[in-house]
Amino acid sequence: MPPTSAGGALAQALFRPRAVALVGVSDDAGRTAGRPLHFLRKHGFAGPIYPINPNRESVQGERAYKSLAETPGPVDHAYILVNTPLVEAAVADCAAAGVRAATILASGFAEAGPEGLALQRRLLEIARGSGLRLVGPNSLGVVDTHTPLALTANAAFAAERLLAGRLAVLSQSGSQIGTFVSRGAPRGIGFSKLVSVGNEADLSVGEIGAALTDDPETDAFLLFLETIREREHFIRFAALANAAGKPIIAYRLGLSDVGRELAVSHTGAMVGSDAAVDAFLRRLGILRVDHLETVLEAPALAIGRKPPETARRSVGVITTTGGGAAMVADRLGLRSVEVTPPSAETYRRLKAAKAPALPGRMIDMTLAGARPDLMLAALDILIEAPEFDLVLAVVGSSAQFHGELAVKPIIDRAHSRKPIAVFLVPHAEVSLRALADSGVAGFRTPEACADAIAAYFGWHRAPPAEPISDAALDTAITALSATSGALLDERQSLALFEALGISAAPCEVVDPERLPPLPFAFPVVAKVLSADITHKTDAGGVALGIGSREELSARSRAMLASVRAKHPDASISGVLVQPMERGLGEVLLGYRSDPQVGPVVTVGMGGTLAEIYRDFSVRLAPVSVAEAEEMLGEVRGFATLRGYRGAPAGDLTALARAVAQLSQLAALPGSPVLEAEINPLIVKTTSVVAVDGVVRLAR
Amino acid sequence: MPPTSAGGALAQALFRPRAVALVGVSDDAGRTAGRPLHFLRKHGFAGPIYPINPNRESVQGERAYKSLAETPGPVDHAYILVNTPLVEAAVADCAAAGVRAATILASGFAEAGPEGLALQRRLLEIARGSGLRLVGPNSLGVVDTHTPLALTANAAFAAERLLAGRLAVLSQSGSQIGTFVSRGAPRGIGFSKLVSVGNEADLSVGEIGAALTDDPETDAFLLFLETIREREHFIRFAALANAAGKPIIAYRLGLSDVGRELAVSHTGAMVGSDAAVDAFLRRLGILRVDHLETVLEAPALAIGRKPPETARRSVGVITTTGGGAAMVADRLGLRSVEVTPPSAETYRRLKAAKAPALPGRMIDMTLAGARPDLMLAALDILIEAPEFDLVLAVVGSSAQFHGELAVKPIIDRAHSRKPIAVFLVPHAEVSLRALADSGVAGFRTPEACADAIAAYFGWHRAPPAEPISDAALDTAITALSATSGALLDERQSLALFEALGISAAPCEVVDPERLPPLPFAFPVVAKVLSADITHKTDAGGVALGIGSREELSARSRAMLASVRAKHPDASISGVLVQPMERGLGEVLLGYRSDPQVGPVVTVGMGGTLAEIYRDFSVRLAPVSVAEAEEMLGEVRGFATLRGYRGAPAGDLTALARAVAQLSQLAALPGSPVLEAEINPLIVKTTSVVAVDGVVRLAR
Repeated sequence: MPPTSAGGALAQALFRPRAVALVGVSDDAGRTAGRPLHFLRKHGFAGPIYPINPNRESVQGERAYKSLAETPGPVDHAYILVNTPLVEAAVADCAAAGVRAATILASGFAEAGPEGLALQRRLLEIARGSGLRLVGPNSLGVVDTHTPLALTANAAFAAERLLAGRLAVLSQSGSQIGTFVSRGAPRGIGFSKLVSVGNEADLSVGEIGAALTDDPETDAFLLFLETIREREHFIRFAALANAAGKPIIAYRLGLSDVGRELAVSHTGAMVGSDAAVDAFLRRLGILRVDHLETVLEAPALAIGRKPPETARRSVGVITTTGGGAAMVADRLGLRSVEVTPPSAETYRRLKAAKAPALPGRMIDMTLAGARPDLMLAALDILIEAPEFDLVLAVVGSSAQFHGELAVKPIIDRAHSRKPIAVFLVPHAEVSLRALADSGVAGFRTPEACADAIAAYFGWHRAPPAEPISDAALDTAITALSATSGALLDERQSLALFEALGISAAPCEVVDPERLPPLPFAFPVVAKVLSADITHKTDAGGVALGIGSREELSARSRAMLASVRAKHPDASISGVLVQPMERGLGEVLLGYRSDPQVGPVVTVGMGGTLAEIYRDFSVRLAPVSVAEAEEMLGEVRGFATLRGYRGAPAGDLTALARAVAQLSQLAALPGSPVLEAEINPLIVKTTSVVAVDGVVRLAR
Repeated sequence: MPPTSAGGALAQALFRPRAVALVGVSDDAGRTAGRPLHFLRKHGFAGPIYPINPNRESVQGERAYKSLAETPGPVDHAYILVNTPLVEAAVADCAAAGVRAATILASGFAEAGPEGLALQRRLLEIARGSGLRLVGPNSLGVVDTHTPLALTANAAFAAERLLAGRLAVLSQSGSQIGTFVSRGAPRGIGFSKLVSVGNEADLSVGEIGAALTDDPETDAFLLFLETIREREHFIRFAALANAAGKPIIAYRLGLSDVGRELAVSHTGAMVGSDAAVDAFLRRLGILRVDHLETVLEAPALAIGRKPPETARRSVGVITTTGGGAAMVADRLGLRSVEVTPPSAETYRRLKAAKAPALPGRMIDMTLAGARPDLMLAALDILIEAPEFDLVLAVVGSSAQFHGELAVKPIIDRAHSRKPIAVFLVPHAEVSLRALADSGVAGFRTPEACADAIAAYFGWHRAPPAEPISDAALDTAITALSATSGALLDERQSLALFEALGISAAPCEVVDPERLPPLPFAFPVVAKVLSADITHKTDAGGVALGIGSREELSARSRAMLASVRAKHPDASISGVLVQPMERGLGEVLLGYRSDPQVGPVVTVGMGGTLAEIYRDFSVRLAPVSVAEAEEMLGEVRGFATLRGYRGAPAGDLTALARAVAQLSQLAALPGSPVLEAEINPLIVKTTSVVAVDGVVRLAR
C-alpha cells in the first residue's frame, strides 16, 4: 500500500499494517504478554498475525513461528513483548527482517536510570541503521478502531466492543489509553487511534501526531502529557493540526510540585516549570484542560471551530434550573470567565418570543418548565446576541427522563456558529450520549464544564511578534560583541537592554579616588560593578541616596573595601553611579531559554511577595506588544500600577513594549542569550526605566 | 405516635406523618402540582393521602376533598401546591385544621422582593399562632425513603425505585434533591431523608437537621448551601450531630463573586464573604467540599470517624497504575496535602511481605499486576504505618472487569482504623457500587478524590479558646467606658488593644504650640488624632521620620493646617506622637462581627499586594493561641516573616498571641465591638507592636 501523504508511510505501517508480528507472545491470553493476540482477534484485525515464539509450536491455539525470518509474508508492525534483557536482540531481528515499525512493551529503559538509558540508545542505533521506527519502549500499544487494529496489552481492551470515533489519543501514560476507552464508552465517545507512546525513544507524540494530521478518520487530538520531548516535532505537529483545522486538547500532569516530581520519576523525563509548558502549549494553539474528564468532553467545543477572535470571555447562560447553572457560573468566576447578563435588546427579543426570562444574569426558564419550543427560541436569540461569545445551556431534571424537552432543542442547534456547552445536572446517560452523537459538548460535572469553557477561551492563535528591526539587531550584536565571559556585568547588561530599545537609567562608571563630574544631579546610587557578584546588596555593594560628591567618594570607598573583603577573588570594574530613580512600582522582567520548550519571557511585580505568590505571566518568546499587553492583564499585582484606589497609573504601554523588546533576544542569530533579567524595571507615569539587570550568555 | 426524642415530634410530623394532605393537587400527574400524589403512590406511602381540591370530585382517579376540614382523619403533614396568591389562605386552613407541618411549593416570597417578603411574614404569623410548622415556601418537598414518603414535586422522583440509604440531604436549592437522588442511584448511594428547605421562613436547615440528629436511619448529613440562615439553630444542629458522631458535609455556592451574587438572587438571602462562612463551617466541625460529586463520595471518609487529631496532612498512596495515582497526587499538592514516601521501616515490611514496591513516593504495585494477596498485605502495612494519616488506593484497569483483584482487598479493610480513599481510574460502576455498599469512600474522578481528602484534613474540632482573664476583661471594659461615640480614635483604639494584652507603641498626645518633653527618643512619627478622619495619610495627617523638637513642632502645625483645610468639620483632639517603629514586616489584624456567621478574626500581611492577593486567614472568634498559630500557617505572605532567604525571623509566637487576644473582643459582655483593626501591627524579632488602629462600636 503506497503512502498517501506526508505521514502516510509511517501512519500506514503503524495503524494499517499489512501484517503484524507478536514477538514473544505468551500462550496465556490473560497475561500482559498474551493479551495482544487475544485483543487483535477479539476486535477483528483482518490481516495476518504472526506469533513469534522460539519455544512453542502454537500460541493460544494458533501456529507460532520460531523467528521473524520464518514468517510467510512481510511484517509492517511488530509488537515486541519479550522481557527487557531480550529487547535488544528482538529489535535487531525486526531490523534484519525489514519490519517497518516496532512497538516495545518492556520497561526498564530511560525511566530506570543510566544503564536503562544506555540500553535505550542502543535500540535506537540498531533501528536507525535499517529504517525501522520504534514506539516505546514502555508502550502499552497502538490501536486503530477503523482498521481495526487492537495491538495493545492494556487490559481495558477486554471490553466487548471497541467504539470507533473521531478522536485520536496520544498518551505518555500507557494505562491512560485504557482510561479513555473505558470512560468514553458509556458516553458514546469513541476514538480513531490510541497510542501509548512510552519513553518516546524514537517516535514522539509530535512525530506520530504529525503523521495523523491528514488522517480522514480523525477530527481532533487528545494528549495525556507528562513532559514535552522532541520539541521541534511537537511544534510541527501542532502547526499541521492547526492548518488542518483539527484542535489538540491536552491534559498534563504537573500542576503542583509533587505532580511534576511524579511525572519525572514515572517516565524518566525532564519536566519544566508549569508556566513555561503552559506558555508553549498556548503558543501552539493547544487547549489545556485541568480535569481528567474535560479532555473527553471539551473536544466538541473546539472541533470545526477556530480560536476565539477577541480576548473577551463572555458567556450567555440559559437554564431550566437556577441552582444547577449557578454551580457552573460560580466556577467560571474562579477562571475569569464572565457570565454576562443579556442586553436590553436580547431581553426584548426573549419577551417577544414569549420566553419567560426573569431579569437577572442568566436566562432562567424555570417558570416555563422545560418546553422545547421556548427553549429553541431562546437558544436562537442567545446564539445571535452579540454580547455572548459562547452559550452555556444547563438542563435540570428533565434531562434524565425527558431529553426531548430541553436537550433535543440544543441538539437541533449543534452546528450553530457560536459554541454551545451543555451541563446536565442529573445523572442522564442517554442525553449525554445523544449530545455526544450530535457533536455537542455535553458535561457531566459543573467543574469539568467550567474547565472546558475556560480552556476554550484560553485557546489562542498568537499574533506573530513584530520582527526585530535590523538596526536594533545590529546594535544588540555590537553590544554583545564588546563583552567577554558568560556573565555580563550590570553596565553591559543595561547596554544590551538599551540596544533592544528599553530605556535604562544613565550610568557612569567611576573610580572613587578620581571622581569625574557627573552628567546627572544628586541624589545618586552607587553600586559595585562586577560580573562575579550577583547579589550586590548582600555583599554590601549598594549605597542608596547619596547626596553629594563627598559622600559619593567616601561611601564608594567604603563599599569597595567591604566587597573586596567578602569576595577577594571577584574582578571589580569600578563603581557604577546612577541617579536615584523613583516610580510607581518595580517590575521584574525576565528572559530564559527553557531546555524543554525554548525561549520564554516572564513579567511580574518585583519583590518578595510577588515571588511568594508566583504572580507572573510567561509566554514563549518573542511576543508582540499586543501579546505583552495580554500578559500584563494576567499579573494580579499590576493592579497597583493601574491607578489602585486613586493612586496615579503607570505607563503600562511602555511596560508592554519593554516586554516585547526583551523577548526579541529570542530572535538574535545563534540564540546567544541563555538568561536575562531586568530587576527592577521602574514603572513611572509616562515611561519605564531599567535600573539593574544581569545577562548570561551561551559562551 | 408519641415523640421519641427532642426532635421526635417534628421529625415524626415531617417524615412519618400519620396522614398526608395535598392542598391544590392537580389532576395531571405530569404537572408540578400533580406529581406529589403520583410519587407518593409510586413509592408506596402506606398512610392515608387526602387530595384537597374544591373544584373536583376526584384527582388522578382518587377521591378529592373540598377542604382540609372534610378529611376523615387528622393530617400531620400537608403539601400546599396552590399558586402564590392562594398560599396564605391554605396556610390558614392548615392552622385551623390542626395540621402539624405544612410544606409550601410556591415561589414568589422573600426571594421576589419586599412584597413577597411581607407575604412570607404573614404566613409565619398565621402558623406561629397555631403551632403549625412550615417548610418553604419555595420547597420542592420532603422525602423519607424508609417510611417511605415521597412528598415532593421534583421530577427526579419519577425514577422507578427510590434507593434507601443512610445519608440525609438538606438543600437550599430544590432541584438539587433530585440531583442527589439521580446521581446517587447508579453508584448505589441512597438517602434516608431529602428535604428542600426553600426560603426557610420557619424551619431552617439547622432546626430540621437538629430534629434528625437522633434519627436511627441517618449516619451523615449532606448540605447544599447558598447561605446561612438561623445561625443559632445551625450551630445547635452541628453540635448535636457532632455529639451523635454524625458528620456533616457541605457543598456551598459562593466561591467566586458571581457565585455569591447568584446565590443571593436565587434565594433572596444575604451571603457573606466566602472566608467568613468557611470559618463558620469549619468551627462547627462541618466538612466543606468544592466539587459537586464529592458531596456524595466524601461521607464514607468521615462516617464512624473523628476529625484528624493533628494538623499533619500525610497520605500514603498504593496504586496499580503510576499515571492514575499521579493525577490525584498532583491535585493533592495544590491543596497542601502531602503524599508522603514510605519510611525505611515500611519499605522493610513491604519487602518482607514480598510486595514489589519500587522506591519512590508511592507504593506502585504495577510490576506485581493486581494480585489480591499482595494488595491486602501492602494495604495492612500502610494502614499500620505511623507516617500516614490516610491511605489512598488507586486502582487501574482491573477495577473495571476484575474487581476481585485489587478492589476486593480494599473492601476487606473497609473498617480499618485509618480512613481509606479509593480512586478508580477506569469507568467501573460495579466496583464503585461494591465500595459504596461496604461503606468505603470510592471516587470517580481524581479531582473529587483530592477534594474529599483535603476536606477530610480540613475537618476540625476547634480547641476551646482560652477564656479572657477577668483582669483583661475589666481593663477592656474600663477602656471602652472612657469613650463616647461609635468610632474610637487611634489613642482609644490602642488603649483597648493594650487592655487585651497586645503591646502598642507608646503615644503622646501633644499640642504643637506647647510641646511637652517626650518620654521616648527621636526620630518620631506625628499623626493627627481624630475619630472623624479614617484615612489620615490621604488627608495629609501623617508625618514620618521627625528628627527633632523643632521639626516636630513645625511639621505638626503644618499637618493640622492641611487637615483642617481638607476636613473643616472634623473634631481634632490633637497630635499623636509615637517613636518610629521598625520591624521585619507589617501585619493587618482585624475583628468583625459578621451579620451572617457572627464574630470573626482575620490576619494577613499589611499593604496593597496582600489585599490584591486576598492572602489572609479567617476564623470564628474567639480563637486559642494554637488555632491562631494554625491561621498564621495559612497566610502565604508570612513566609517573609519566617526567615525568608536568610533574613531574620519574626516573633510569630507573639503574633499568634496577639491574634488570640484581639479575638477576645467576641467575649466582651454585650458584644460592644462591631469592628476593630490593627494596621499595622509591626512584627519584630522578639515582639509585636500595634502602631495604628481603629475600633467601631455598636452605639
